[in-house]
Amino acid sequence: MQEKEISQAVIRRMPRYYRYLGELLDAGVERISSNDLSKRMNVTASQIRQDLNNFGGFGQQGYGYNVKYLYEEIGKILGLNERHNIIVMGAGNLGQALTNYVKFEKLGFVIIGLFDVNPALDGVTVRGIKIRMLDELESFCEENQVDIAALTMPKEKADAIANRLVGLGIRAIWNFAHVDLELIDKNVVVENVHLSDSLMQLSYNIVRNKKAEENGN
Amino acid sequence: MQEKEISQAVIRRMPRYYRYLGELLDAGVERISSNDLSKRMNVTASQIRQDLNNFGGFGQQGYGYNVKYLYEEIGKILGLNERHNIIVMGAGNLGQALTNYVKFEKLGFVIIGLFDVNPALDGVTVRGIKIRMLDELESFCEENQVDIAALTMPKEKADAIANRLVGLGIRAIWNFAHVDLELIDKNVVVENVHLSDSLMQLSYNIVRNKKAEENGN
Repeated sequence: MQEKEISQAVIRRMPRYYRYLGELLDAGVERISSNDLSKRMNVTASQIRQDLNNFGGFGQQGYGYNVKYLYEEIGKILGLNERHNIIVMGAGNLGQALTNYVKFEKLGFVIIGLFDVNPALDGVTVRGIKIRMLDELESFCEENQVDIAALTMPKEKADAIANRLVGLGIRAIWNFAHVDLELIDKNVVVENVHLSDSLMQLSYNIVRNKKAEENGN
Repeated sequence: MQEKEISQAVIRRMPRYYRYLGELLDAGVERISSNDLSKRMNVTASQIRQDLNNFGGFGQQGYGYNVKYLYEEIGKILGLNERHNIIVMGAGNLGQALTNYVKFEKLGFVIIGLFDVNPALDGVTVRGIKIRMLDELESFCEENQVDIAALTMPKEKADAIANRLVGLGIRAIWNFAHVDLELIDKNVVVENVHLSDSLMQLSYNIVRNKKAEENGN
């Protein structure tokens, strides 16, 4: 595989390819042309070819793509051939929802710990995972391989917790707190899920559509 | 305000401006130059000027931006000067987490209903909102103005529910089901939150960083 830098826009599209190929595989489809894949996914065939060429291609002229091979290769590109251990910081509604979401585990993302500061939650279990108090974080991270920390606590506490985690050697943060983290180590990977931003984008499009309808478009 | 089409990439950045301006406003800052805003937000001043010029500018040469005015104008652009009523389809962990998230309400997004198919949940309340069974959906949508439906049910059921909602006049869907919806009306606005995709993007970047570190970059 090539080592050149691939744009995040391309990377954002890869999970969608992975999902469609998984569905094709489940349906028993062995190979597919970029044209057929293009129709299914509602993107151009040229976009598909360009995206996959970033990783060296995978297609054969006149044959198309081997579904199983492409599915597995994209899985490797996305790091899904490795197990990723996750701890969830904050055992409120969202933290518990993430912990209960079993599908992550099928993709190799395994939640192994859940932390909170509320003493009422100490020792409560969610899907068999014990909620621990924050003062157990250091010993837990020493005894367990933690790859990703999901932050679901209020934004005011997010920076402090995130940097404490980075100090403990955690290299990836899945951030649900509504703030841009300021980390002591810029090489730590951060992926933000800002639900309020997503709602605002939705409401922008609602307003835009209403205006277009009023203007008779 | 101009009526030209603005790219979704610009729109995706607007909630972040709104958030930073809100923080400046809370801190009592009355005006800010695009250079200072640029440093805070870690984007170029030219990007800020370009983004805001899509909506007609707002800045004054030598003065910068009036924080309160810009905050309010971006709020209007994002439709935050209107109330948006939301119903949540699926009262599992995620549906309950969304319902419990009080900050949406401060932005004008008010959850007014919560639906499920599990009889054990019938009549249970979440933050004062009664969980209703799906057969009450039609009467509820007749009696209430519903602007947005949040889908948190399994992906297998998402298309059917989404199209039932569209048939009831709902024009916007906030989709958490891990599927691309196929709607009977293409003008309905859909905003996807695909948590698995976000995790895969994170794990791609973990793998990439590991490789870079191994190569001594």
